[in-house]
Amino acid sequence: MHLQRIDHVGYAVEDLDAAIAYHQDLYDMSVVHRETVESDGVREALLAVGESYIQLLEPLSDASPVARFLRRNGGPGVHHIGYGVADVEATLRELAGRGVRVVDDHPRPGSRGCTIAFVHPKAAMGVLVELVEDPSRT
Amino acid sequence: MHLQRIDHVGYAVEDLDAAIAYHQDLYDMSVVHRETVESDGVREALLAVGESYIQLLEPLSDASPVARFLRRNGGPGVHHIGYGVADVEATLRELAGRGVRVVDDHPRPGSRGCTIAFVHPKAAMGVLVELVEDPSRT
Repeated sequence: MHLQRIDHVGYAVEDLDAAIAYHQDLYDMSVVHRETVESDGVREALLAVGESYIQLLEPLSDASPVARFLRRNGGPGVHHIGYGVADVEATLRELAGRGVRVVDDHPRPGSRGCTIAFVHPKAAMGVLVELVEDPSRT
Repeated sequence: MHLQRIDHVGYAVEDLDAAIAYHQDLYDMSVVHRETVESDGVREALLAVGESYIQLLEPLSDASPVARFLRRNGGPGVHHIGYGVADVEATLRELAGRGVRVVDDHPRPGSRGCTIAFVHPKAAMGVLVELVEDPSRT
């Protein structure tokens, strides 16, 4: 399978508005998308950098996986890496065929109209990897 | 200042050859550069993904910052994020003028002929950020 690009780097943050202001003020980055994703328990903002995004993730509640990450990590940090692929379903099938452990057995809707699935960190050298099929970019 | 792109995501790994094989076999990625950087205490390999690289970093010794990361993290993971900038020196000057804490007060040589400097995680929302000026890409 082929990874098209680093779609995004996902940062877990405690305060979304402060994190946006930091990236805007210091690095002159622009917010290109904002969304609340109830299924993942997050409010997010995307900032453009080259062909990629910085994805800022603030937990909606203490039960959110991002809240758990913040507690385990002792604060903000890199939560996951998103790779752009042409076809998440085909990629998942290929990974399954090779015995790679995944978080999502089937593709599911992500933010901004994307189809996504997560690969388990134990199968990806300790890194939580998201596969992202972005219909606006494939 | 302007971030041109995600230059690379730096992964700390315990076994460089195994990490290369993983990315080659599973994601069909190619090694575009290998280098030993004594000053940073690492052997590294770069694999291309879109306009970015995956940078795999194996410590040369237990005293390497990457070895310390592996111990603290309990294994491999995302060590840092590298952003492409046109001019590391000007960027450092601007950051200093805004009171942003940096690891490197002055630009220094990185791998593959780049000029680099690290911003301190405490000034970058918990993330170790590398500024990369790549003469082959600016």
